[in-house]
Amino acid sequence: MIDRLIAKIEETQNPTVVGLDPRLSFIPKWIKEESYEEHGKTPKGAAKAFLHFNKEIIDAIYDLIPAVKPQIAMYEQYGSHGIDAYIETIEYCKQKGLIIIGDIKRGDIASTAEAYSHGHIGKVDIEGDRFEIYKEDSITINPYLGYDSIEPFLADCSNYDKGLFVLVKTSNPNSGQIQNLEVGGIKLYERMGQLVSEWGEGLIGKRSYSSIGAVVGATHPEEAKNLRRIMPHTYFLVPGYGAQGGTAADLAGCFNKDGLGAIINSSRGIIAAHNDKVNQNKYTEKEFAQAAREAVIKMKLDLQQVLNTIV
Amino acid sequence: MIDRLIAKIEETQNPTVVGLDPRLSFIPKWIKEESYEEHGKTPKGAAKAFLHFNKEIIDAIYDLIPAVKPQIAMYEQYGSHGIDAYIETIEYCKQKGLIIIGDIKRGDIASTAEAYSHGHIGKVDIEGDRFEIYKEDSITINPYLGYDSIEPFLADCSNYDKGLFVLVKTSNPNSGQIQNLEVGGIKLYERMGQLVSEWGEGLIGKRSYSSIGAVVGATHPEEAKNLRRIMPHTYFLVPGYGAQGGTAADLAGCFNKDGLGAIINSSRGIIAAHNDKVNQNKYTEKEFAQAAREAVIKMKLDLQQVLNTIV
Repeated sequence: MIDRLIAKIEETQNPTVVGLDPRLSFIPKWIKEESYEEHGKTPKGAAKAFLHFNKEIIDAIYDLIPAVKPQIAMYEQYGSHGIDAYIETIEYCKQKGLIIIGDIKRGDIASTAEAYSHGHIGKVDIEGDRFEIYKEDSITINPYLGYDSIEPFLADCSNYDKGLFVLVKTSNPNSGQIQNLEVGGIKLYERMGQLVSEWGEGLIGKRSYSSIGAVVGATHPEEAKNLRRIMPHTYFLVPGYGAQGGTAADLAGCFNKDGLGAIINSSRGIIAAHNDKVNQNKYTEKEFAQAAREAVIKMKLDLQQVLNTIV
Repeated sequence: MIDRLIAKIEETQNPTVVGLDPRLSFIPKWIKEESYEEHGKTPKGAAKAFLHFNKEIIDAIYDLIPAVKPQIAMYEQYGSHGIDAYIETIEYCKQKGLIIIGDIKRGDIASTAEAYSHGHIGKVDIEGDRFEIYKEDSITINPYLGYDSIEPFLADCSNYDKGLFVLVKTSNPNSGQIQNLEVGGIKLYERMGQLVSEWGEGLIGKRSYSSIGAVVGATHPEEAKNLRRIMPHTYFLVPGYGAQGGTAADLAGCFNKDGLGAIINSSRGIIAAHNDKVNQNKYTEKEFAQAAREAVIKMKLDLQQVLNTIV
């Protein structure tokens, strides 16, 4: 997986992953009304509006980015209609050649983890027939349960050229409450970083990075720099840039000297660019996807400046 | 929520929660064949077989137990058909008066946690209309992200009389790798226990227990005893009894002197009792639900013996 991701990053010259985390408040009225007309003001109507919105956004930006990160919670909240919209969004993005990082943050005991793994990145077996269900290329995982909760995913990563991003240091304000506790002279997130690095040793690709990556928030630049040192062969998925307060300068420490090692997520900053106060009155309701494209271009330039300070 | 759960435990005299974690290998051939006939050997056929199987099990045991715990992973792996089977299972169990503990182990940054919370235990808002989607009474939550990832769920618990069970010490073999790390002279799971206890202070019910409970594995009896002391007002959801190796004697430390404070989960031991080596040739394929009923009665007696040693 990681070699495919790096190839796409180099092809687009853009280490950006766009978060497909729609909310009804981001979606232009005309899309919602069309969907409600056909499906009602219902969970199905909301889910179909998400799908339509996502497709227009993707059409406008797919040539500029290597990857997307749909956040499953936004879809799951609408039940099976939401799950269908999640899966159809992934299928649409794959047709456009994008790498899919499913932001699912699952984590459970081994027998249960296996079901998540087969469903999301592997194959489910029904009487000897095998089905791919969600088809993400990589998913986010919560490691609180320890190694045996990770192991079933590693098997599918190896079997199907897939990957993980394991939560190490998250971007939210209270992440330190647990993750920064001192454990034997280091912080818990540092210990987690060591473990994730070990767990990924069997899945190192041609470019010396592992398909087992880490989630490292842009809102904690010092911690990111620290983790970069602890886990040189681990790719970072970096949330928190933009809407959560992380700036381009905060990102420098996430990259290695080779200009690789991190992919930066922006969700709201791209897909809701048309709603952004800064852009008020700049875009009509019909131009939301154009707004997303311009936001991607602006972010790409930002990141290129960051990379110029490193390489 | 917790008062409703305690009332049901007292009514049934049985602190058992039955895990509805079906696998195709547990399900009698005749149910699978009926389902495949109608829906194909497909994710839909598998999901519909789960639903049929669950309904028969529930019909046979609902009068004996206070609660069920469907494990969403088993359903989620089949995509939207699986999610429909999960939701229909919950609806069926609610009609039978059971309390539903959704084993979903979600955990994310606040804005995302809110979507999980609204979907699972609260209501989702679509243009001013509010929909209940999953309708669990309580859900399991992973706390690795800290307090702001929990807060959105607390609001819905308060608004809709719902509850949580937060992962503190899990039942799996490697749970100690993270959870038993030393943090400032105590173990991480102990610190987590303190936090969960604090988080639940605003939701204490009439019986002095909080609607914010903790997951505490039966496979670690010493740790459970320890946590019982640290968090006297927290209800424990205890997995690991039976198939994972926890015995009745291991459970004593999970309860308080009032005979309350813990609800013990068994999944495979109940729903796959007809497959159990011990029962070989005792039940025909048609009698799987009867086997589950007898397993529940056996477990209830086991737990009553445990409680007799305490109260």
